[in-house]
Amino acid sequence: MTPEPPNAWLGRDYSMRAPRLTSREIRLASRPRGMPLPADFELAEVALAEPAEGEVLVRNVYMSVDPYMRGRMSDAPSYAAPFDVGKVMAGGAVGKVLQSRAPELQAGDLVLSMLGWREQFVAHAGSVQKLPAASVPLSAYLGILGLTGFTAWYGLNEIGRPKKGEWVAVSAAAGAVGSVAGQLARAHGCHVVGSAGSDDKVAHLVGDHGFEAAFNYHRLTPVEGFRRGAPEGIDVYFDNVGGAHLEAAIQHMRNFGRIVACGSISRYNLTAPAPGPSNVSLIVGKRLLMQGFIIADHYSRLGEFRSQVIPMIERGQLRWRETILDGIERAPEAFIKLFEGGNLGKMLVRLAPEAA
Amino acid sequence: MTPEPPNAWLGRDYSMRAPRLTSREIRLASRPRGMPLPADFELAEVALAEPAEGEVLVRNVYMSVDPYMRGRMSDAPSYAAPFDVGKVMAGGAVGKVLQSRAPELQAGDLVLSMLGWREQFVAHAGSVQKLPAASVPLSAYLGILGLTGFTAWYGLNEIGRPKKGEWVAVSAAAGAVGSVAGQLARAHGCHVVGSAGSDDKVAHLVGDHGFEAAFNYHRLTPVEGFRRGAPEGIDVYFDNVGGAHLEAAIQHMRNFGRIVACGSISRYNLTAPAPGPSNVSLIVGKRLLMQGFIIADHYSRLGEFRSQVIPMIERGQLRWRETILDGIERAPEAFIKLFEGGNLGKMLVRLAPEAA
Repeated sequence: MTPEPPNAWLGRDYSMRAPRLTSREIRLASRPRGMPLPADFELAEVALAEPAEGEVLVRNVYMSVDPYMRGRMSDAPSYAAPFDVGKVMAGGAVGKVLQSRAPELQAGDLVLSMLGWREQFVAHAGSVQKLPAASVPLSAYLGILGLTGFTAWYGLNEIGRPKKGEWVAVSAAAGAVGSVAGQLARAHGCHVVGSAGSDDKVAHLVGDHGFEAAFNYHRLTPVEGFRRGAPEGIDVYFDNVGGAHLEAAIQHMRNFGRIVACGSISRYNLTAPAPGPSNVSLIVGKRLLMQGFIIADHYSRLGEFRSQVIPMIERGQLRWRETILDGIERAPEAFIKLFEGGNLGKMLVRLAPEAA
Repeated sequence: MTPEPPNAWLGRDYSMRAPRLTSREIRLASRPRGMPLPADFELAEVALAEPAEGEVLVRNVYMSVDPYMRGRMSDAPSYAAPFDVGKVMAGGAVGKVLQSRAPELQAGDLVLSMLGWREQFVAHAGSVQKLPAASVPLSAYLGILGLTGFTAWYGLNEIGRPKKGEWVAVSAAAGAVGSVAGQLARAHGCHVVGSAGSDDKVAHLVGDHGFEAAFNYHRLTPVEGFRRGAPEGIDVYFDNVGGAHLEAAIQHMRNFGRIVACGSISRYNLTAPAPGPSNVSLIVGKRLLMQGFIIADHYSRLGEFRSQVIPMIERGQLRWRETILDGIERAPEAFIKLFEGGNLGKMLVRLAPEAA
């Protein structure tokens, strides 16, 4: 049977089913121009049908906010379809099955979904992924074991191809992707230099994540930061930021360097085109490779990723931080904070107590 | 024995050897700022020693001028050492052995050297490469079979990796590298779109080289030219130009496109940094690959290149044009014309009659 849209109860007599389920969700109210504002989001309460045959009712415990969602709030052509105005924001969430009418899931199972910014939802069992009874905290499946960790792993290994002893630079290095990319580079035996937006984050990168050096880009230009942190130049640059960081990295790359084009958070809220790196022609003389990627193209490698990374977590080789805001009504605030540097590690919204 | 510098006759009694040999050569007189000027070059007459044991005397027939030499006229850090002021300009040349004291070469042999802008020279036999008694014209070893053709072949195949039916765009497509890249892409079964700087060049690309479309970038912006020429987008962009062409190509690339970063002739004479492509962050969403290369890293593949390309020439599948100026005193003019678009195909300077 085909999955039923969760709110499509027209024509059925739900008055027969009690008690009536409700959930709250965040919808896109308007397409932002520049930095998203709280008014671009709206909180709505919706009634849920009870699960039909093949469906499950899930209560989300954590939901993810990620910079890439900014692109989907616009309707410019992009790799992912834009969110619809008036519809729920999509995105990753982890939660617990409350009720199941599907044989493969039982009440109490932990599941990952991409169904978005909702407290609870009813969906076909095939649209959620069952998570193992955890040796790692549930929230990790939105962070280090989720798309952000997977993004770091794929980009670093497949595009950056770091070799022992090389110098790896990471921008937004205290963020969810950057902190994993940096630690994975350390595990490859590389020297790692990171940029971040506060002195606390810088201290965290060097103290907790084994970075060789880190700098606060509010105090040092990226040119100066990379030069001091990696005096002999950079072999791999993992770019989460774009803009001045990318230009500085190109300037400071060694011959045959690789640029992992993962994101450009400095540019997502621009309202007009801004000049790009003035030194892009150095790509020729330095024989640089720059390559972009979207992790959704590589889901087939998710199992391989987890099987490599879980033992590293168990050995204590990979650590992570989370910044957690409570309550779905704070999800817009959590999202906006991503662009203000208001997160250390993965930014999450807690929608329900984990133990409940 | 080690090769002897050609002009190092100090301390020897050359008066015993008659007749005394002379040659003319072009030296770097001063480092250009911006576009090179005739005054940045000087013509000098030098006396040549007769060949010592292991040496040959060569009369060059053609010498090459190439855009990359502009970089070596500056002393900014680059992949190749700068030319020295007051010393002869280096570069490719083909000529004939006049006299040999090396067993592997005989008078009359045709040779390729990188010894530069000279009419004649004496050098160790190991510093020249013997060419086959030719099924192709001698000048081709500076063009389609030389470094420019090799550059096109390597960049297109190794970085561009064109597949049958894909759309390939080439800038400076009527130049020595671009015209070969475009024809090789045609041979792969691709649709090829080229930009060039005159209506005549555009007609030549479509009429003689099988380009699907070409545009004159003095009449159409690159954005417009690429859009009209390849309405569904570009899979491979072979960039010889940089600047607005690169930005337009990024804008018009299809997902998973490849940018062959071969050169940036539009930028070589800039005296101040100019903004780069404002849309470089599209590299992420479109999953683009951009990679630079320097052909000198890949000389080990030269034999493979020639063995693939000579049969294509013999089948008439690859054609080329040359723009030839006569006399070494015109070498600076030939070089400067490269940046003014004054060449169709390979720009050469003829230093002696081919049959002599």
